[in-house]
Parts: sequence; structure tokens; C-alpha cells
Amino acid sequence: MEFRVWAPKAERVELDLGGQRLDLVRGERGWWSVEVPDAGHNTEYAYRLDGGEARPDPRSPSQPEGVHGPSRVVDHSLFPWTDQAWTGAHFPSAAVYELHVGTFSEEGTFDGAIQHLDHLVELGVTAVELLPVAEFPGGRNWGYDGVDLYAPHSSYGGPDGFKRLVDACHHRGLAVILDVVYNHLGPEGNYLGEFGPYFTDYFDTPWGDAVNYAREDSDEVRRFAIDNALMWLRDYHVDGLRLDAVHAIIDTSAEHLLEQLATEVEELGVVVGRPLFLMAESDLNDTRLLLPRPNGYGLDAQWSDDFHHALRTTFTDERRGYFVDFDGLPDLAATLQRGWPHAGTYSASRRRTHGRPYVGLPGWHLLGYAQNHDQVGNRAQGDRLSHVLPGDQLEVVAALVLTAPFVPMLFQGEEWGARTPFQYFTSHTDPALGRAVSEGRRNEFKPFGWSPEEVPDPQDPATFERSKLDWAELEHDDHQRLLSWYSALLALRRSTPELLDGRLDRVRVDVDEGARTIVVRRGPITVAATIGTSPVPVVDGEVVLSAERVVVVRAR
Amino acid sequence: MEFRVWAPKAERVELDLGGQRLDLVRGERGWWSVEVPDAGHNTEYAYRLDGGEARPDPRSPSQPEGVHGPSRVVDHSLFPWTDQAWTGAHFPSAAVYELHVGTFSEEGTFDGAIQHLDHLVELGVTAVELLPVAEFPGGRNWGYDGVDLYAPHSSYGGPDGFKRLVDACHHRGLAVILDVVYNHLGPEGNYLGEFGPYFTDYFDTPWGDAVNYAREDSDEVRRFAIDNALMWLRDYHVDGLRLDAVHAIIDTSAEHLLEQLATEVEELGVVVGRPLFLMAESDLNDTRLLLPRPNGYGLDAQWSDDFHHALRTTFTDERRGYFVDFDGLPDLAATLQRGWPHAGTYSASRRRTHGRPYVGLPGWHLLGYAQNHDQVGNRAQGDRLSHVLPGDQLEVVAALVLTAPFVPMLFQGEEWGARTPFQYFTSHTDPALGRAVSEGRRNEFKPFGWSPEEVPDPQDPATFERSKLDWAELEHDDHQRLLSWYSALLALRRSTPELLDGRLDRVRVDVDEGARTIVVRRGPITVAATIGTSPVPVVDGEVVLSAERVVVVRAR
Repeated sequence: MEFRVWAPKAERVELDLGGQRLDLVRGERGWWSVEVPDAGHNTEYAYRLDGGEARPDPRSPSQPEGVHGPSRVVDHSLFPWTDQAWTGAHFPSAAVYELHVGTFSEEGTFDGAIQHLDHLVELGVTAVELLPVAEFPGGRNWGYDGVDLYAPHSSYGGPDGFKRLVDACHHRGLAVILDVVYNHLGPEGNYLGEFGPYFTDYFDTPWGDAVNYAREDSDEVRRFAIDNALMWLRDYHVDGLRLDAVHAIIDTSAEHLLEQLATEVEELGVVVGRPLFLMAESDLNDTRLLLPRPNGYGLDAQWSDDFHHALRTTFTDERRGYFVDFDGLPDLAATLQRGWPHAGTYSASRRRTHGRPYVGLPGWHLLGYAQNHDQVGNRAQGDRLSHVLPGDQLEVVAALVLTAPFVPMLFQGEEWGARTPFQYFTSHTDPALGRAVSEGRRNEFKPFGWSPEEVPDPQDPATFERSKLDWAELEHDDHQRLLSWYSALLALRRSTPELLDGRLDRVRVDVDEGARTIVVRRGPITVAATIGTSPVPVVDGEVVLSAERVVVVRAR
Repeated sequence: MEFRVWAPKAERVELDLGGQRLDLVRGERGWWSVEVPDAGHNTEYAYRLDGGEARPDPRSPSQPEGVHGPSRVVDHSLFPWTDQAWTGAHFPSAAVYELHVGTFSEEGTFDGAIQHLDHLVELGVTAVELLPVAEFPGGRNWGYDGVDLYAPHSSYGGPDGFKRLVDACHHRGLAVILDVVYNHLGPEGNYLGEFGPYFTDYFDTPWGDAVNYAREDSDEVRRFAIDNALMWLRDYHVDGLRLDAVHAIIDTSAEHLLEQLATEVEELGVVVGRPLFLMAESDLNDTRLLLPRPNGYGLDAQWSDDFHHALRTTFTDERRGYFVDFDGLPDLAATLQRGWPHAGTYSASRRRTHGRPYVGLPGWHLLGYAQNHDQVGNRAQGDRLSHVLPGDQLEVVAALVLTAPFVPMLFQGEEWGARTPFQYFTSHTDPALGRAVSEGRRNEFKPFGWSPEEVPDPQDPATFERSKLDWAELEHDDHQRLLSWYSALLALRRSTPELLDGRLDRVRVDVDEGARTIVVRRGPITVAATIGTSPVPVVDGEVVLSAERVVVVRAR
């Protein structure tokens, strides 16, 4: 097989095969290569630049010994796929379930996750969305500190484990969406800068230098990201990608990276014969991401934090941080009818005008959720909505999310009101970095009145263990009751074309700010709910679903 | 009158009226104001922040004593405009003449320029484009070191002088385009950062920190730029703006500054009852700038350096720097038929893929030129094409530019093959800065084989004097002959609808790389030319214009 690596500034590149060293030959545009006839699946290797330390391949497909260890060759053709009957997922009618492999199951592995897939099928979601699985330092991490972007994490089960999970999902009719991070790399084990100009100090991001997508020698950096995306979709049979924080992908080129990516993913879909989809996390409120190419980038969807914040401020009195830009019911009505309320309006949290109108697009280009890993885990103690709201209000939240004109998304355990938190955890092996992360986390919440000892230490293994779902909770009636409510709502959504219809001009919403009630009408279906103590508004029709503070009726 | 200034971080802001100090009152969003009943036109003033030094108003309308001096109030309603009959210019059929006020006339003033306007009318151009006139340090500068963006330069004649020039242009049927710089400010006299967060270190530009158009508190910075644009168009009766280096305007907002600007300029056009237009200098080759809003920004045009570089490499063997991406005749044909050849192709000078296809747009969204201030002045010695090409080749160049499907632009003196150079000159009053600029200029050209003494010193007044047009040259026959050629071509263009037709699919170009000839067909008009020593290709038709190496015929 041929080993190839991009190292445009190197004078010498060696392949290190467990001590045996071979010189690579410089080719075009900074690419080096060498043919090694007897290497293949499972061969361990590393690169040495200009006689330096052995480094993992930037495109390493497997890092069995972690981010600092050798790379291992993976021959994707060897995996015994059994999902030949899988023809792909229809994104606009999807219902998504976000899960974190390390905490979703007791085992914290891909195989562990497989054991709970039937639960998801019974619940009625149609797609799982995995937090990033690329190799990160240690065994405990949300995934956003990944540095070997091509390597499924060793402690989760590596490449074969991930393939087994995807295969098992497809057998059950579940699509797989993978969260991928192209705006930064983690702080430990990131050797990319030694290989080439992967980063540029010309633009900043919250994590430091931006990834170099628009400056000199950026073509190969763009390929690094795009080839990675294509690999997951092609070699791992993944159905869609969730692109982390695309507002931190600074690209001034005439063809934005996201447009190039969307074009290539669409073409790959033709080759593999399945619809493939892309969704963004975006802090831009910019329809350009979603509009068709060439005027837009043609992504399929983006997460809607505006909907989340409108919901959250409807049910709680939180108004700090970004919640300052939201004020409950009127904003909730605005999101349901106009996609996002921040559409060229002043945002106090950003101290600037934000967004543009969401026009010409159906609602299913947005993901609507009451919880996700960020909105739970980025709270000081990782508390869920179920920690702050009574069960009868959780039912209202669920009804509003699952009857909204957006693609709904649940966060693992939300469906039964899990009592386990989802906290911020890391396992950096560099002691100084570990201390800095622990300290940084404590300081982050000081301005909000949290004392250091109240904030869990990300580096403490107990923080990770505490964040694991406790499936035994499902033995309790109150958890089962909420789970049934979610299932019933998902079933109603699936069977009601008008609930899947994304046309926002057909959504009618009436809110009563004084009584704190809301009525959402979507074709024959009406959802009436009370947020406070007022009675549920009386609406005409046959009751389809009802709980203490919310009723769903169908026109007679 | 009311004095208003934006100073969001200040604790105290005082108005300094020649020694008398008045406190301003803090209002909303960082704006301070004070009413001074007896102030008005010509009142001198400055601001003091937190008891500091007197500083010019960031929006100073006049700086009679230069960039460090006091500001002066201008009441725009007092100017005796006489251009009531002017109804504005039609951009797509324009022919533009770029001029630099300081060197266009012997006087180097707005009034001095007026004396030569009749020459431009006789030449047949329809618009003048002025290099930036905003107050810069000293009296000699191209204009890109401007720091008081609202103040026409004092040594050019200040606000009244500029208005007289615009008035005089309109009387002669000439539109006025002003070059404005929103991507950076000059290094001397830039006090904006003391007033507020006008700059951000989050993004870089070739001049350092980017102007803050997308980060916290950027709304007022955007207004600073946009209000400036609107002022020129409204209060100075300017018809269009040329936006300097928009690729260095880093704006990640959902509504790009250029889109917001174009929207507001269009609305102003309705109010003033004239078409107003915007053109960009852009190193992006991105149709987004030109496509209609909301998918594009809706600018009217952009400069086409690709056409210039294709022309230049057709007539010279220059292949260094950005010329490495061009190779003469084939690229010239490509520009004439496809707008720009770099349309998602690898650019060696940029070391990355560049541009996207120019589709869905007529050619008049591009300005085509063989010379401009940059392409002359940014050469080591500021030499013109007339310094390196014989007269018979200058005639070919002129014919290709003036029959191209782009809006043609000439650089002052080009029309008679001026022998005066246009060199890089400055007059920084800060001695250290002046030395740094002189030194920087010398070093810039070392890699290209120029010894320091061969590169004119920008700070030397002689460099500026040398760059002034010598109108006495027009007394010589050879200069008159070239001038007649330009006039005849412009007259032909004006009177031939097919030459003004921007549809690129109607342009037919045949080049013979061996013979180094080119034939351009546009409807009934055919231009046949030879670049080298081959005969002019024989083409059918009635000869309309002919010179030694080029003939223009009309189909019989």
C-alpha cells in the first residue's frame, strides 16, 4: 500500500514502522509518499518530520494508543456490513436523538450504545446524532477536543466499533448523524501545525488561531476537512453530519468551505445511492447557509438556539447571558411563525445587530429542541430541564417541541426526565493542561455566583461517571409516564402530515402573556397549553392527547 | 446646533471650542451630545475624552489645519449648487476616467481639476473617478492614508472646493465617482481607536487590525462607514463610490456591510432622484458582490484586475508576482468571453484556489482597464504603459479596452501617452513614520532587483512633483495622435449599441498564439489586431478605424 502525507514545509519525511524507517518521496504541492508492499490493515505507523519525534498521521484512521501514540492502517473494505437494505433517511421528516457515546450506556462504547437502540425505536425517533467521536486525549470528553479527526475513538471501540453501531442503527431503521468539528482542534495531541499550515493567525476563533481555509496553501486544508466528511459518509455509512460552530469557520473565499462541502456531499450521495445531509451549528441566523446553491450554501438544516432560548425563557426566569435577548412567550410565538426572531435586530448579548429574516425556507431547515448537550452541559452543574421544571411542565415542553414546524431533537434521557446530570468532563493527560481546564471551568461560573466547589471538576473521573445515563430510572412510574408522553407525541407527529409540514405561514400561534397560555394551530391539530397556573385554554375538537397542563385536539 | 459623538468607553466627553470647554451628556448606546445655540457653519471644535488631548471629531466634516488640528462645522445647506439639471448617470454605458486631484492639474486642487474638465468631455468619457479625497497627513498622498473620512482634503480645497468640482462636472454631463476606503485608516492621525472599538484584533488585514464590522459594538462602526458613503452621495452630489479593497472588509454577519450599504444607497437614490452606484475593488472573483440582493450584495460593478493582467501579459513578458497566474492571449480571450478566468482555479500567486465562475452577469459589471493608479503607481518607478510600449502597441491596447464588453476605465494621461510617471508619494508629518515608509518602499522592490536608489523616495516632494501630469505634452503631435485615437474609439463605443452590450455569450474572440494576433467580434463590429510583428489579420467589412497594428471594421 501507499503511505501519503502532506508536509509542504518539511525537508525530509520518514515513515516509522515500529522502529523501521523509510524515506518518503516529495511529490506535488507538498505531498510525500512511499509504497510499502507488505503493509496493510492494522499496520502500525507514524511519521517523522526532519528527523523529529514520531507523530501520528494527520489523517490517521485509528489511534489505538491515544492521541500521542502510533497510527494504525484501516482497510475499510474488510468490514462485514449487513446494512445493504438501508436506503437512507428522509431528513425533513426526521426526529433526532442526540447522544454521547461515553455516557449513553454504562459501558460507554459503541457496542454499549447498540444495546439501547431498541429503546430509541420504541420511542419513535428516526435518527441518532452522536457527539464527536474523533480521537481525543484520554477516555472522557464530550468530543470537541478531538485531534485525530479521521479516527473513531479507541476507548469507544475504534473504527470497527463505530461501524458496528452504524450497521445496527440501519438495521433498526435509524439514521446516523455524526457531529464533526472543523473550526478548531483540541489543545492536546494536535500535531497538525508541525505538518503544514493548517492554522492561520490572520483570523481568530474562540479557540485561538483559525483553521486555514482561505489563506496560502489552504487548498489542502480544505481537502483535509472535506475528505474527512466524505470518509464518514462513505466508509462508515453515516447518513448526515452536524457541523460544529460554523460561525468560527472563517472563509473569505469566493466558494465558502461549506458550499464546497455541500456540493461534494451531494455528489457522494449520488454515488452511494442514499440521501446524505448536512446540518450546521450556527450563531449567524444567516439564511445563506440554508438557501440553495449557488446563492446559498445548500446545507439541509441548522440548529435553532433561538427556539431553545425562547422556550427556556418561557418556562424559567433565566435572563442572563444570551437569554437576555429573549423574553418567553412572544419570542416563542415568533420562532414558531418566523423561524428565528433575531433577524436583523439588536442583540444585547452580542452587542450588535444580529441575523437576517428567515424567508423562503420551510421550518424543517431548523432543528428545534428544548435540550441538547450544550444547553445542559454548559450549565455550571450540567442540570437538565427535569431538574428545574415539574413533570407537568416537562409535558408541555415536549408537546411544544414535538408539534413544532422544525425537525425535533431530544437529548439522551430527556424522554424519561433523567435525573442524571450531563456535566463538562475531560481527561487531558497533560497535567498542566488538566489543571488549567479545571481552573478555567471554576472561574467561568464565578461571575454567575457559583462558588468554585459547586462547579464539578472536569478532570475528576466522578464527573464523567455522574453524567452517565441511569437506565434503571426507567423502572419508575413517573419516568415511564413521561416516556409514554414523548412516544405518543412522536407517533402523532409521524402520522400527521400537517405536523410535518414546514410551511411557517400555515402555523398559527396565540399567546396570552397575562394568563401565560399558548395555543398552536397546525392544520387540524391544535395544541393548547398553560405555562403557569391558569387553566389550559379551551379549544374545539376531539382530544387526541392530554396531560395536566396541555391538550392536543384534532378538528372534528 | 447639536454636537454628537460616539464614545462608548469614555467616562467624560468635552467639546472644546477654541479653549472653551463644554461637557457632553451621555445618551444611548455610547453617544454623547450637547446643544450649542450659537455654533454653526465654520465653528472650530474638538473633543476631549476623559480630560485628554483635543482630538478631531471622528466624523469631522472639515480639517482645515490637517489631521491633527481642530475640526470645523460645515452646513451643507449653504452651498450654492447649480447642477439642478443633472439627472444622474447611467452606469452600464459609462466610460470612466480615474484621476488623482493632487497630480491631475498643476495646482493639484479641486479648482485646478475643473480647468481640465473640457478636455475630458472632448475625449468622450462620461465619468471621473477620484482617488480618495478624505483628509490625510500632509499635502501629498494617493489618498489611502486618509483618517478623517468625512472631510475633503484641506489642501485640495476642502468641502467647498469639492462641491465646486462636482458641480462643474455635472454641468458638463460628467458623473463623479469617489474612491472611499472602509477597510483601514491611515497610520497617522488615526484617533478613532480612542473614541471607540472601531478596530478589532480578531481579524487581520494587510494594514493590521481589521475595522470592526462584525464584533461587539460594531453597529456604530458600520454606521460610521455607511453614513460616510451616504454623505458623499447626498451632500456632495457624488454619483457613485469605488470601494477600496473590499476583500479586506472582514464581515461575518448575516448581512454583509456591502449588502447593507448597497441597500441604503439604493434607497437614497430614490430620495435624491438620481441613480447612485457602487463599485468594488475586489480580490475575490466572487459574483456574490454583483448578484442581486438578497442572494448577492447587489453592487453595480467591480474592477477587473484579471482583464488588466491578461492584457499586460499579452503585451509584455512580465510574469512575476501576480502576473504568474496569467499568460497573455488565451487569458485575454477568456476574460472577454467569461469575465474572469480565475473561477475556482489554482492561483500560484495566492497559493490557493481562487474565485468562482462569472455567470449570470453581463460584462458591464466589470471595469476593464489597461492602466490605473495601482498598476502604474505600484511599480517601482511608477512607469506607465507608454514607457514600455511603442505608440503603435498603445493603439492596440486602447482598441481592446474600449471595444471590450466591460465599462472601460482610463488613468489620467493615458489618453495621450503621458510621459510623466505616477509614483508612490506620501507626506507623513511624523518623522519616524516618514522614515519607515521611505525605507519600506525601498525594501519592497529589492527582491525584484531594484537597488534602493532606483526607487523614488515617497516622502520626497520631488516624487510628488514628478508625478504631476504635464499638460504641455499635448502640444506634441504624437501625443495628439494617440489622443485622437482614444477619442475616436470612445465615440465609436458610444454610438454602437453592440459595443455597449454586456452579454458575454455574444462576444467572439479568436486568437492565434503563434502569430500573436487577436480578432474580437461584437455584433457588426470586428477588431483585428497584431501584438507582434505579424500582419493584422484580414477581416471582412468596412474599415471604421485603423492604425498600424489594429483595424476596426463594420460588417457591410
